Amino acid sequence: MKIINSIAPMQSFAEALRLQGKKISFVPTMGYFHEGHLDLMREARKMADCLVVSIYVNPTQFGPKEDLSKYPRDFDRDSKMAQDVGVDVIFYPPNEEMYPENYQTYVNVEKVTQNLCGLSRPGHFRGVTTICNKLFNIVKPHVAVFGKKDYQQFITIKRMVTDMNLDLEIIGLPTVREADGLAMSSRNVYLKENERVSALNLVKSLKLAQKLYDSGERKSSRILSEVTGLIKSAPYTEIDYVKICDATTLMDIDEIATQAVIALAVKVGTTRLIDNHVFGDPLNT
Amino acid sequence: MKIINSIAPMQSFAEALRLQGKKISFVPTMGYFHEGHLDLMREARKMADCLVVSIYVNPTQFGPKEDLSKYPRDFDRDSKMAQDVGVDVIFYPPNEEMYPENYQTYVNVEKVTQNLCGLSRPGHFRGVTTICNKLFNIVKPHVAVFGKKDYQQFITIKRMVTDMNLDLEIIGLPTVREADGLAMSSRNVYLKENERVSALNLVKSLKLAQKLYDSGERKSSRILSEVTGLIKSAPYTEIDYVKICDATTLMDIDEIATQAVIALAVKVGTTRLIDNHVFGDPLNT
Repeated sequence: MKIINSIAPMQSFAEALRLQGKKISFVPTMGYFHEGHLDLMREARKMADCLVVSIYVNPTQFGPKEDLSKYPRDFDRDSKMAQDVGVDVIFYPPNEEMYPENYQTYVNVEKVTQNLCGLSRPGHFRGVTTICNKLFNIVKPHVAVFGKKDYQQFITIKRMVTDMNLDLEIIGLPTVREADGLAMSSRNVYLKENERVSALNLVKSLKLAQKLYDSGERKSSRILSEVTGLIKSAPYTEIDYVKICDATTLMDIDEIATQAVIALAVKVGTTRLIDNHVFGDPLNT
Repeated sequence: MKIINSIAPMQSFAEALRLQGKKISFVPTMGYFHEGHLDLMREARKMADCLVVSIYVNPTQFGPKEDLSKYPRDFDRDSKMAQDVGVDVIFYPPNEEMYPENYQTYVNVEKVTQNLCGLSRPGHFRGVTTICNKLFNIVKPHVAVFGKKDYQQFITIKRMVTDMNLDLEIIGLPTVREADGLAMSSRNVYLKENERVSALNLVKSLKLAQKLYDSGERKSSRILSEVTGLIKSAPYTEIDYVKICDATTLMDIDEIATQAVIALAVKVGTTRLIDNHVFGDPLNT
Protein backbone atom coordinates (compact mmCIF):
# COMPACT_ATOMS: atom_id res chain seq x y z
CA MET A 1 0.00 0.00 0.00
CA LYS A 2 1.25 3.43 -1.03
CA ILE A 3 0.80 6.55 1.09
CA ILE A 4 0.75 9.79 -0.90
CA ASN A 5 0.67 12.98 1.12
CA SER A 6 0.84 15.66 -1.54
CA ILE A 7 -1.45 16.73 -4.40
CA ALA A 8 0.92 16.75 -7.40
CA PRO A 9 2.22 13.17 -6.97
CA MET A 10 -1.33 11.89 -6.39
CA GLN A 11 -2.48 13.58 -9.59
CA SER A 12 0.39 12.23 -11.68
CA PHE A 13 0.02 8.74 -10.18
CA ALA A 14 -3.68 8.76 -11.15
CA GLU A 15 -2.97 10.16 -14.61
CA ALA A 16 -0.33 7.48 -15.26
CA LEU A 17 -2.79 4.74 -14.23
CA ARG A 18 -5.43 6.17 -16.56
CA LEU A 19 -2.96 6.28 -19.45
CA GLN A 20 -2.40 2.55 -18.90
CA GLY A 21 -6.15 2.03 -19.21
CA LYS A 22 -6.48 1.10 -15.53
CA LYS A 23 -9.68 1.79 -13.59
CA ILE A 24 -9.56 3.79 -10.33
CA SER A 25 -12.12 3.52 -7.53
CA PHE A 26 -12.21 6.02 -4.69
CA VAL A 27 -13.53 6.25 -1.14
CA PRO A 28 -13.18 9.76 0.34
CA THR A 29 -13.15 9.70 4.16
CA MET A 30 -12.30 11.80 7.21
CA GLY A 31 -10.54 8.78 8.73
CA TYR A 32 -11.06 7.09 12.10
CA PHE A 33 -12.35 4.05 10.28
CA HIS A 34 -15.19 1.82 11.42
CA GLU A 35 -16.87 -1.14 9.77
CA GLY A 36 -18.92 1.24 7.60
CA HIS A 37 -15.78 2.66 5.98
CA LEU A 38 -14.29 -0.82 5.54
CA ASP A 39 -17.46 -2.01 3.84
CA LEU A 40 -17.19 0.86 1.32
CA MET A 41 -13.55 -0.04 0.71
CA ARG A 42 -14.26 -3.75 0.22
CA GLU A 43 -16.95 -2.96 -2.35
CA ALA A 44 -14.84 -0.29 -4.09
CA ARG A 45 -11.94 -2.76 -4.17
CA LYS A 46 -13.97 -5.05 -6.44
CA MET A 47 -14.85 -2.26 -8.89
CA ALA A 48 -11.42 -1.23 -10.17
CA ASP A 49 -7.75 -1.99 -10.65
CA CYS A 50 -6.66 0.55 -8.06
CA LEU A 51 -8.50 1.62 -4.91
CA VAL A 52 -7.63 5.05 -3.52
CA VAL A 53 -8.87 6.11 -0.06
CA SER A 54 -8.42 9.69 1.08
CA ILE A 55 -8.13 10.59 4.74
CA TYR A 56 -8.75 14.28 5.28
CA VAL A 57 -10.67 16.02 8.05
CA ASN A 58 -12.02 18.82 5.88
CA PRO A 59 -12.22 22.10 7.83
CA THR A 60 -14.66 23.83 5.44
CA GLN A 61 -17.49 21.41 6.28
CA PHE A 62 -17.38 22.13 10.01
CA GLY A 63 -19.24 25.10 11.47
CA PRO A 64 -17.40 27.47 13.85
CA LYS A 65 -19.01 25.79 16.89
CA GLU A 66 -18.61 22.21 15.65
CA ASP A 67 -16.12 19.48 16.57
CA LEU A 68 -13.33 20.07 14.02
CA SER A 69 -10.51 20.20 16.56
CA LYS A 70 -11.70 17.23 18.58
CA TYR A 71 -12.80 15.10 15.61
CA PRO A 72 -11.17 11.69 16.27
CA ARG A 73 -7.97 10.95 14.31
CA ASP A 74 -5.67 7.90 14.25
CA PHE A 75 -3.67 7.64 11.06
CA ASP A 76 -1.61 4.60 12.08
CA ARG A 77 -4.65 2.56 13.03
CA ASP A 78 -6.46 3.70 9.85
CA SER A 79 -3.59 2.75 7.56
CA LYS A 80 -3.34 -0.73 9.08
CA MET A 81 -7.08 -1.26 8.62
CA ALA A 82 -6.90 0.04 5.05
CA GLN A 83 -4.03 -2.28 4.20
CA ASP A 84 -5.99 -5.25 5.56
CA VAL A 85 -8.93 -4.62 3.22
CA GLY A 86 -6.70 -4.22 0.16
CA VAL A 87 -6.48 -0.45 -0.29
CA ASP A 88 -3.80 0.43 -2.87
CA VAL A 89 -3.26 4.09 -2.08
CA ILE A 90 -4.00 6.29 0.90
CA PHE A 91 -4.14 9.96 -0.06
CA TYR A 92 -3.43 12.00 3.06
CA PRO A 93 -2.92 15.66 2.14
CA PRO A 94 -2.04 18.55 4.47
CA ASN A 95 -4.34 21.55 5.04
CA GLU A 96 -1.79 23.99 3.58
CA GLU A 97 -2.05 22.24 0.22
CA MET A 98 -5.81 21.75 0.19
CA TYR A 99 -6.63 25.31 1.27
CA PRO A 100 -3.56 27.46 0.58
CA GLU A 101 -3.39 31.16 1.36
CA ASN A 102 -5.85 33.19 -0.72
CA TYR A 103 -8.03 30.09 -1.34
CA GLN A 104 -11.46 31.36 -2.46
CA THR A 105 -13.37 28.88 -4.65
CA TYR A 106 -16.46 26.95 -3.53
CA VAL A 107 -18.93 24.60 -5.21
CA ASN A 108 -22.50 24.92 -4.07
CA VAL A 109 -25.45 22.62 -4.77
CA GLU A 110 -28.31 24.96 -4.08
CA LYS A 111 -31.54 23.03 -3.57
CA VAL A 112 -31.05 19.53 -2.13
CA THR A 113 -28.81 21.09 0.54
CA GLN A 114 -31.53 23.40 1.91
CA ASN A 115 -33.49 21.02 4.12
CA LEU A 116 -32.47 18.56 6.88
CA CYS A 117 -28.81 18.98 7.95
CA GLY A 118 -28.58 22.00 5.64
CA LEU A 119 -30.93 23.82 8.04
CA SER A 120 -28.91 23.21 11.19
CA ARG A 121 -25.43 23.17 9.63
CA PRO A 122 -25.22 26.22 7.32
CA GLY A 123 -22.25 25.94 4.96
CA HIS A 124 -21.71 22.25 5.75
CA PHE A 125 -22.65 20.91 2.32
CA ARG A 126 -20.79 23.72 0.53
CA GLY A 127 -17.70 22.39 2.32
CA VAL A 128 -18.55 18.80 1.41
CA THR A 129 -19.15 19.48 -2.29
CA THR A 130 -16.08 21.70 -2.54
CA ILE A 131 -13.74 19.11 -1.02
CA CYS A 132 -15.27 16.25 -3.01
CA ASN A 133 -14.92 18.14 -6.28
CA LYS A 134 -11.29 18.93 -5.42
CA LEU A 135 -10.61 15.30 -4.47
CA PHE A 136 -12.22 14.04 -7.68
CA ASN A 137 -9.90 16.32 -9.68
CA ILE A 138 -6.87 15.07 -7.74
CA VAL A 139 -7.63 11.32 -7.55
CA LYS A 140 -9.31 11.13 -11.01
CA PRO A 141 -11.48 8.12 -10.14
CA HIS A 142 -13.81 6.27 -12.50
CA VAL A 143 -16.08 5.42 -9.59
CA ALA A 144 -16.49 6.86 -6.07
CA VAL A 145 -18.31 5.09 -3.25
CA PHE A 146 -20.27 6.77 -0.45
CA GLY A 147 -22.32 5.47 2.48
CA LYS A 148 -26.02 6.19 2.55
CA LYS A 149 -25.90 6.86 6.30
CA ASP A 150 -25.18 10.42 5.17
CA TYR A 151 -28.16 10.29 2.84
CA GLN A 152 -28.32 14.02 2.10
CA GLN A 153 -24.58 14.04 1.40
CA PHE A 154 -25.00 11.14 -1.03
CA ILE A 155 -27.85 12.89 -2.88
CA THR A 156 -25.92 16.18 -2.92
CA ILE A 157 -22.76 14.59 -4.36
CA LYS A 158 -24.78 12.76 -7.01
CA ARG A 159 -26.45 16.04 -7.98
CA MET A 160 -23.10 17.85 -8.15
CA VAL A 161 -21.54 15.16 -10.33
CA THR A 162 -24.49 15.27 -12.75
CA ASP A 163 -24.68 19.07 -12.87
CA MET A 164 -20.92 19.60 -13.21
CA ASN A 165 -20.62 16.84 -15.87
CA LEU A 166 -17.96 15.05 -13.86
CA ASP A 167 -17.17 11.89 -15.83
CA LEU A 168 -17.44 9.49 -12.90
CA GLU A 169 -19.93 7.11 -11.34
CA ILE A 170 -21.24 7.64 -7.79
CA ILE A 171 -22.28 4.53 -5.87
CA GLY A 172 -24.20 4.63 -2.59
CA LEU A 173 -24.03 1.68 -0.19
CA PRO A 174 -26.44 0.83 2.64
CA THR A 175 -25.71 1.97 6.18
CA VAL A 176 -23.63 -0.47 8.21
CA ARG A 177 -24.92 -0.94 11.77
CA GLU A 178 -23.62 -2.29 15.06
CA ALA A 179 -25.09 -5.63 16.16
CA ASP A 180 -27.73 -3.74 18.16
CA GLY A 181 -28.69 -1.53 15.20
CA LEU A 182 -26.86 1.72 15.94
CA ALA A 183 -25.61 3.23 12.68
CA MET A 184 -21.80 3.16 12.52
CA SER A 185 -20.24 6.61 12.91
CA SER A 186 -16.82 7.90 13.90
CA ARG A 187 -18.70 10.11 16.35
CA ASN A 188 -20.10 7.08 18.25
CA VAL A 189 -16.89 7.09 20.33
CA TYR A 190 -18.16 10.28 21.97
CA LEU A 191 -21.17 8.46 23.48
CA LYS A 192 -21.21 7.60 27.19
CA GLU A 193 -22.63 4.21 28.13
CA ASN A 194 -26.08 5.41 29.15
CA GLU A 195 -26.25 7.73 26.14
CA ARG A 196 -25.53 4.78 23.87
CA VAL A 197 -28.68 3.05 25.17
CA SER A 198 -30.71 6.13 24.29
CA ALA A 199 -29.06 6.31 20.86
CA LEU A 200 -30.63 2.96 20.00
CA ASN A 201 -33.99 4.70 19.84
CA LEU A 202 -32.93 6.28 16.54
CA VAL A 203 -32.92 3.01 14.62
CA LYS A 204 -35.93 1.79 16.61
CA SER A 205 -37.84 4.85 15.44
CA LEU A 206 -36.92 4.13 11.80
CA LYS A 207 -38.22 0.57 12.23
CA LEU A 208 -41.41 1.96 13.75
CA ALA A 209 -41.83 4.28 10.75
CA GLN A 210 -41.44 1.35 8.34
CA LYS A 211 -43.94 -0.67 10.40
CA LEU A 212 -46.51 2.13 10.20
CA TYR A 213 -45.83 2.40 6.45
CA ASP A 214 -46.30 -1.36 6.08
CA SER A 215 -49.64 -1.11 7.86
CA GLY A 216 -50.75 1.37 5.17
CA GLU A 217 -50.02 4.71 6.84
CA ARG A 218 -49.03 7.39 4.27
CA LYS A 219 -49.55 10.63 6.23
CA SER A 220 -46.17 12.06 7.20
CA SER A 221 -47.57 13.87 10.24
CA ARG A 222 -48.95 10.66 11.78
CA ILE A 223 -45.69 8.75 11.26
CA LEU A 224 -43.60 11.66 12.53
CA SER A 225 -45.63 12.12 15.68
CA GLU A 226 -45.16 8.48 16.69
CA VAL A 227 -41.47 8.50 15.79
CA THR A 228 -40.86 11.75 17.65
CA GLY A 229 -42.62 10.38 20.69
CA LEU A 230 -40.42 7.29 20.73
CA ILE A 231 -37.19 9.29 20.49
CA LYS A 232 -38.28 11.76 23.16
CA SER A 233 -39.10 8.88 25.52
CA ALA A 234 -35.36 8.15 25.87
CA PRO A 235 -33.26 10.30 28.24
CA TYR A 236 -30.40 12.58 27.06
CA THR A 237 -32.04 13.06 23.64
CA GLU A 238 -32.73 16.36 21.93
CA ILE A 239 -34.23 16.25 18.45
CA ASP A 240 -32.67 18.49 15.80
CA TYR A 241 -35.07 17.27 13.11
CA VAL A 242 -37.17 14.29 12.11
CA LYS A 243 -38.61 14.66 8.62
CA ILE A 244 -40.14 12.72 5.78
CA CYS A 245 -38.94 13.92 2.39
CA ASP A 246 -39.04 13.08 -1.28
CA ALA A 247 -36.05 10.73 -1.67
CA THR A 248 -34.60 12.70 -4.61
CA THR A 249 -35.45 16.37 -4.05
CA LEU A 250 -35.32 16.12 -0.22
CA MET A 251 -38.31 18.46 0.04
CA ASP A 252 -40.74 17.82 2.90
CA ILE A 253 -43.79 15.85 1.85
CA ASP A 254 -47.13 15.64 3.64
CA GLU A 255 -48.05 12.34 2.13
CA ILE A 256 -45.88 9.46 0.91
CA ALA A 257 -46.74 8.98 -2.76
CA THR A 258 -43.38 8.45 -4.50
CA GLN A 259 -40.09 7.17 -3.07
CA ALA A 260 -39.62 8.79 0.34
CA VAL A 261 -36.98 8.94 3.05
CA ILE A 262 -37.36 9.48 6.78
CA ALA A 263 -34.28 11.32 8.01
CA LEU A 264 -33.38 12.38 11.52
CA ALA A 265 -30.70 14.17 13.49
CA VAL A 266 -30.74 13.85 17.26
CA LYS A 267 -28.35 15.09 19.89
CA VAL A 268 -27.69 12.32 22.41
CA GLY A 269 -25.84 13.95 25.28
CA THR A 270 -23.53 16.30 23.41
CA THR A 271 -23.15 14.03 20.36
CA ARG A 272 -25.17 14.78 17.25
CA LEU A 273 -26.17 11.57 15.46
CA ILE A 274 -27.93 11.13 12.13
CA ASP A 275 -29.78 8.22 10.61
CA ASN A 276 -32.30 7.64 7.83
CA HIS A 277 -34.38 5.06 6.07
CA VAL A 278 -35.84 4.94 2.57
CA PHE A 279 -39.33 3.43 2.91
CA GLY A 280 -39.41 -0.04 1.44
CA ASP A 281 -35.62 -0.55 1.54
CA PRO A 282 -34.27 -3.30 3.81
CA LEU A 283 -33.33 -2.10 7.31
CA ASN A 284 -30.44 -4.31 8.34
CA THR A 285 -30.48 -4.55 12.11
CA MET B 1 -13.45 19.17 -38.68
CA LYS B 2 -15.88 17.35 -36.44
CA ILE B 3 -19.00 18.99 -34.96
CA ILE B 4 -20.19 17.42 -31.71
CA ASN B 5 -23.47 18.73 -30.33
CA SER B 6 -24.02 16.57 -27.28
CA ILE B 7 -22.17 16.07 -23.99
CA ALA B 8 -21.73 12.29 -23.83
CA PRO B 9 -20.07 11.88 -27.26
CA MET B 10 -17.78 14.86 -26.56
CA GLN B 11 -16.73 13.29 -23.27
CA SER B 12 -16.04 9.87 -24.79
CA PHE B 13 -14.20 11.40 -27.76
CA ALA B 14 -11.94 13.31 -25.35
CA GLU B 15 -11.43 10.26 -23.13
CA ALA B 16 -10.47 8.11 -26.12
CA LEU B 17 -7.91 10.71 -27.25
CA ARG B 18 -6.42 10.83 -23.76
CA LEU B 19 -6.16 7.04 -23.64
CA GLN B 20 -4.10 7.25 -26.84
CA GLY B 21 -1.78 9.70 -25.08
CA LYS B 22 -2.93 12.60 -27.26
CA LYS B 23 -2.90 16.18 -25.98
CA ILE B 24 -6.07 18.29 -26.14
CA SER B 25 -6.15 22.10 -26.29
CA PHE B 26 -9.36 24.03 -25.76
CA VAL B 27 -10.78 27.47 -26.55
CA PRO B 28 -14.19 28.07 -24.93
CA THR B 29 -16.17 30.77 -26.77
CA MET B 30 -19.65 32.23 -27.14
CA GLY B 31 -19.18 32.24 -30.92
CA TYR B 32 -19.53 35.11 -33.42
CA PHE B 33 -15.82 34.89 -34.04
CA HIS B 34 -13.51 37.81 -34.65
CA GLU B 35 -9.75 37.98 -35.11
CA GLY B 36 -9.29 37.75 -31.33
CA HIS B 37 -10.92 34.31 -31.21
CA LEU B 38 -8.97 33.16 -34.28
CA ASP B 39 -5.72 34.25 -32.66
CA LEU B 40 -6.52 32.11 -29.59
CA MET B 41 -7.32 29.17 -31.88
CA ARG B 42 -4.12 29.52 -33.90
CA GLU B 43 -2.03 29.54 -30.74
CA ALA B 44 -3.99 26.67 -29.14
CA ARG B 45 -3.62 24.72 -32.38
CA LYS B 46 0.18 24.66 -31.89
CA MET B 47 -0.07 23.37 -28.30
CA ALA B 48 -1.76 20.01 -28.78
CA ASP B 49 -2.73 17.15 -31.05
CA CYS B 50 -6.39 18.07 -31.02
CA LEU B 51 -7.92 21.54 -30.75
CA VAL B 52 -11.49 21.71 -29.42
CA VAL B 53 -13.46 24.98 -29.62
CA SER B 54 -16.79 25.27 -27.84
CA ILE B 55 -19.50 27.61 -29.06
CA TYR B 56 -22.07 28.21 -26.35
CA VAL B 57 -23.85 31.43 -25.39
CA ASN B 58 -24.00 30.68 -21.68
CA PRO B 59 -27.25 32.01 -20.15
CA THR B 60 -26.03 31.92 -16.52
CA GLN B 61 -23.42 34.62 -17.13
CA PHE B 62 -25.97 37.17 -18.41
CA GLY B 63 -27.93 39.35 -16.00
CA PRO B 64 -31.72 39.61 -16.39
CA LYS B 65 -31.39 42.99 -18.15
CA GLU B 66 -28.42 42.04 -20.33
CA ASP B 67 -28.16 41.12 -24.02
CA LEU B 68 -28.56 37.30 -23.89
CA SER B 69 -31.35 37.12 -26.46
CA LYS B 70 -29.77 39.57 -28.89
CA TYR B 71 -26.18 38.36 -28.44
CA PRO B 72 -24.91 37.89 -32.04
CA ARG B 73 -24.87 34.30 -33.33
CA ASP B 74 -23.82 32.83 -36.69
CA PHE B 75 -22.90 29.17 -36.45
CA ASP B 76 -22.30 28.61 -40.17
CA ARG B 77 -19.91 31.54 -40.47
CA ASP B 78 -18.17 30.48 -37.23
CA SER B 79 -17.65 26.89 -38.34
CA LYS B 80 -16.14 27.99 -41.66
CA MET B 81 -13.75 30.33 -39.85
CA ALA B 82 -12.86 27.58 -37.35
CA GLN B 83 -12.15 25.11 -40.13
CA ASP B 84 -9.84 27.62 -41.83
CA VAL B 85 -7.64 27.98 -38.73
CA GLY B 86 -7.36 24.21 -38.21
CA VAL B 87 -9.88 23.53 -35.44
CA ASP B 88 -10.41 19.75 -35.04
CA VAL B 89 -13.66 19.71 -33.08
CA ILE B 90 -16.43 22.24 -32.50
CA PHE B 91 -18.42 21.43 -29.38
CA TYR B 92 -21.85 23.04 -29.77
CA PRO B 93 -24.18 21.82 -27.01
CA PRO B 94 -27.85 22.69 -26.50
CA ASN B 95 -29.14 24.52 -23.40
CA GLU B 96 -31.31 21.56 -22.36
CA GLU B 97 -28.18 19.46 -21.90
CA MET B 98 -26.03 22.10 -20.23
CA TYR B 99 -28.72 23.23 -17.78
CA PRO B 100 -31.32 20.47 -17.56
CA GLU B 101 -34.41 20.69 -15.37
CA ASN B 102 -33.56 20.82 -11.67
CA TYR B 103 -30.02 22.09 -12.42
CA GLN B 104 -28.67 23.61 -9.18
CA THR B 105 -24.86 23.55 -8.92
CA TYR B 106 -22.62 26.62 -9.19
CA VAL B 107 -18.91 27.30 -8.77
CA ASN B 108 -18.02 30.60 -7.18
CA VAL B 109 -14.64 32.30 -6.92
CA GLU B 110 -15.28 34.66 -4.07
CA LYS B 111 -12.63 37.41 -3.98
CA VAL B 112 -11.18 38.29 -7.39
CA THR B 113 -14.75 38.52 -8.71
CA GLN B 114 -15.79 41.27 -6.27
CA ASN B 115 -14.35 44.35 -7.94
CA LEU B 116 -14.57 45.75 -11.52
CA CYS B 117 -17.18 43.92 -13.65
CA GLY B 118 -18.21 41.95 -10.55
CA LEU B 119 -19.62 45.20 -9.13
CA SER B 120 -21.81 46.04 -12.11
CA ARG B 121 -22.64 42.50 -13.25
CA PRO B 122 -23.64 40.54 -10.11
CA GLY B 123 -23.63 36.80 -10.79
CA HIS B 124 -21.71 37.19 -14.06
CA PHE B 125 -18.52 35.48 -12.92
CA ARG B 126 -20.42 32.74 -11.09
CA GLY B 127 -21.92 31.93 -14.49
CA VAL B 128 -18.51 32.06 -16.18
CA THR B 129 -16.75 29.84 -13.65
CA THR B 130 -19.64 27.36 -13.59
CA ILE B 131 -19.74 26.96 -17.37
CA CYS B 132 -15.94 26.78 -17.68
CA ASN B 133 -15.72 24.09 -14.98
CA LYS B 134 -18.47 22.12 -16.75
CA LEU B 135 -16.75 22.52 -20.13
CA PHE B 136 -13.39 21.44 -18.68
CA ASN B 137 -15.06 18.27 -17.35
CA ILE B 138 -16.64 17.60 -20.74
CA VAL B 139 -13.76 18.48 -23.10
CA LYS B 140 -10.99 17.21 -20.75
CA PRO B 141 -8.30 19.52 -22.13
CA HIS B 142 -4.64 19.59 -21.11
CA VAL B 143 -4.50 23.30 -21.86
CA ALA B 144 -7.17 26.00 -22.27
CA VAL B 145 -6.55 29.37 -23.87
CA PHE B 146 -8.27 32.65 -22.93
CA GLY B 147 -7.94 36.24 -24.14
CA LYS B 148 -6.71 38.86 -21.70
CA LYS B 149 -9.21 41.41 -23.03
CA ASP B 150 -11.46 39.88 -20.37
CA TYR B 151 -8.72 40.32 -17.80
CA GLN B 152 -10.86 39.69 -14.71
CA GLN B 153 -12.28 36.58 -16.35
CA PHE B 154 -8.76 35.30 -17.07
CA ILE B 155 -7.65 35.89 -13.45
CA THR B 156 -10.86 34.31 -12.12
CA ILE B 157 -10.50 31.17 -14.25
CA LYS B 158 -6.85 30.81 -13.25
CA ARG B 159 -7.84 31.10 -9.58
CA MET B 160 -10.62 28.52 -9.99
CA VAL B 161 -8.33 26.04 -11.72
CA THR B 162 -5.72 26.38 -8.96
CA ASP B 163 -8.23 26.22 -6.10
CA MET B 164 -10.21 23.31 -7.55
CA ASN B 165 -7.02 21.36 -8.42
CA LEU B 166 -8.10 21.03 -12.05
CA ASP B 167 -5.22 19.26 -13.80
CA LEU B 168 -4.96 21.66 -16.73
CA GLU B 169 -2.93 24.65 -17.82
CA ILE B 170 -4.55 28.05 -18.40
CA ILE B 171 -2.89 30.34 -20.94
CA GLY B 172 -3.77 34.01 -21.39
CA LEU B 173 -3.04 35.77 -24.69
CA PRO B 174 -2.79 39.52 -25.34
CA THR B 175 -5.81 41.47 -26.56
CA VAL B 176 -6.15 41.59 -30.33
CA ARG B 177 -7.09 45.05 -31.64
CA GLU B 178 -8.49 46.56 -34.81
CA ALA B 179 -6.02 48.58 -36.92
CA ASP B 180 -7.15 51.74 -35.10
CA GLY B 181 -6.68 50.17 -31.65
CA LEU B 182 -10.24 49.23 -30.66
CA ALA B 183 -10.17 45.95 -28.73
CA MET B 184 -11.86 43.17 -30.71
CA SER B 185 -15.22 42.15 -29.28
CA SER B 186 -18.28 40.38 -30.63
CA ARG B 187 -20.22 43.33 -29.21
CA ASN B 188 -18.44 45.83 -31.49
CA VAL B 189 -21.07 45.06 -34.15
CA TYR B 190 -23.58 46.93 -31.98
CA LEU B 191 -21.67 50.23 -32.39
CA LYS B 192 -23.01 52.94 -34.69
CA GLU B 193 -20.44 54.81 -36.79
CA ASN B 194 -20.17 57.88 -34.59
CA GLU B 195 -20.12 55.73 -31.44
CA ARG B 196 -17.20 53.77 -32.86
CA VAL B 197 -15.17 56.99 -33.02
CA SER B 198 -15.90 57.62 -29.35
CA ALA B 199 -15.00 54.03 -28.52
CA LEU B 200 -11.43 54.71 -29.66
CA ASN B 201 -10.96 56.85 -26.57
CA LEU B 202 -10.83 53.66 -24.49
CA VAL B 203 -7.54 52.47 -25.92
CA LYS B 204 -6.29 56.08 -26.12
CA SER B 205 -6.90 56.40 -22.40
CA LEU B 206 -4.92 53.22 -21.70
CA LYS B 207 -2.04 54.64 -23.74
CA LEU B 208 -2.27 57.87 -21.78
CA ALA B 209 -2.12 55.90 -18.52
CA GLN B 210 1.01 54.08 -19.69
CA LYS B 211 2.55 57.40 -20.76
CA LEU B 212 1.93 58.91 -17.32
CA TYR B 213 3.39 55.76 -15.74
CA ASP B 214 6.45 56.03 -18.00
CA SER B 215 6.93 59.62 -16.88
CA GLY B 216 7.14 58.36 -13.30
CA GLU B 217 3.57 58.84 -12.07
CA ARG B 218 2.56 56.16 -9.52
CA LYS B 219 -0.49 57.74 -7.83
CA SER B 220 -3.63 55.97 -9.05
CA SER B 221 -5.83 59.00 -8.44
CA ARG B 222 -3.73 61.25 -10.71
CA ILE B 223 -3.67 58.72 -13.54
CA LEU B 224 -7.38 57.98 -13.16
CA SER B 225 -8.42 61.62 -13.23
CA GLU B 226 -6.61 62.21 -16.55
CA VAL B 227 -7.92 58.99 -18.04
CA THR B 228 -11.47 59.70 -16.93
CA GLY B 229 -11.27 63.19 -18.39
CA LEU B 230 -10.19 61.84 -21.76
CA ILE B 231 -13.00 59.28 -21.93
CA LYS B 232 -15.63 61.81 -20.85
CA SER B 233 -14.46 64.23 -23.55
CA ALA B 234 -15.93 61.90 -26.20
CA PRO B 235 -19.70 62.00 -26.87
CA TYR B 236 -22.03 59.02 -26.23
CA THR B 237 -19.78 57.69 -23.43
CA GLU B 238 -20.86 56.77 -19.93
CA ILE B 239 -18.22 55.36 -17.61
CA ASP B 240 -19.14 52.25 -15.61
CA TYR B 241 -15.73 52.07 -13.95
CA VAL B 242 -12.10 53.01 -14.51
CA LYS B 243 -9.82 51.52 -11.85
CA ILE B 244 -6.22 50.69 -11.10
CA CYS B 245 -5.85 47.36 -9.30
CA ASP B 246 -3.27 44.87 -8.16
CA ALA B 247 -2.86 42.63 -11.22
CA THR B 248 -3.39 39.40 -9.21
CA THR B 249 -5.84 40.20 -6.40
CA LEU B 250 -7.75 42.84 -8.44
CA MET B 251 -8.08 44.99 -5.33
CA ASP B 252 -7.99 48.77 -5.83
CA ILE B 253 -4.59 50.28 -5.13
CA ASP B 254 -3.80 53.92 -4.35
CA GLU B 255 -0.25 53.68 -5.50
CA ILE B 256 1.38 51.45 -8.14
CA ALA B 257 4.07 49.48 -6.32
CA THR B 258 3.75 45.92 -7.65
CA GLN B 259 2.31 44.69 -10.98
CA ALA B 260 -0.85 46.68 -11.64
CA VAL B 261 -3.64 46.76 -14.20
CA ILE B 262 -5.82 49.63 -15.35
CA ALA B 263 -9.24 48.23 -16.24
CA LEU B 264 -12.26 50.04 -17.58
CA ALA B 265 -15.85 49.47 -18.63
CA VAL B 266 -17.59 52.18 -20.60
CA LYS B 267 -20.99 52.32 -22.21
CA VAL B 268 -20.70 53.79 -25.68
CA GLY B 269 -24.23 54.45 -26.84
CA THR B 270 -26.00 51.38 -25.53
CA THR B 271 -22.98 49.08 -25.93
CA ARG B 272 -20.89 48.23 -22.88
CA LEU B 273 -17.23 47.84 -23.81
CA ILE B 274 -14.31 46.74 -21.63
CA ASP B 275 -10.59 47.11 -22.03
CA ASN B 276 -7.51 46.92 -19.81
CA HIS B 277 -3.76 47.30 -19.72
CA VAL B 278 -1.13 45.84 -17.41
CA PHE B 279 1.41 48.60 -16.80
CA GLY B 280 4.68 47.80 -18.55
CA ASP B 281 3.17 45.26 -20.96
CA PRO B 282 3.24 46.08 -24.69
CA LEU B 283 0.10 47.85 -25.93
CA ASN B 284 -0.26 46.70 -29.54
CA THR B 285 -2.06 49.43 -31.43
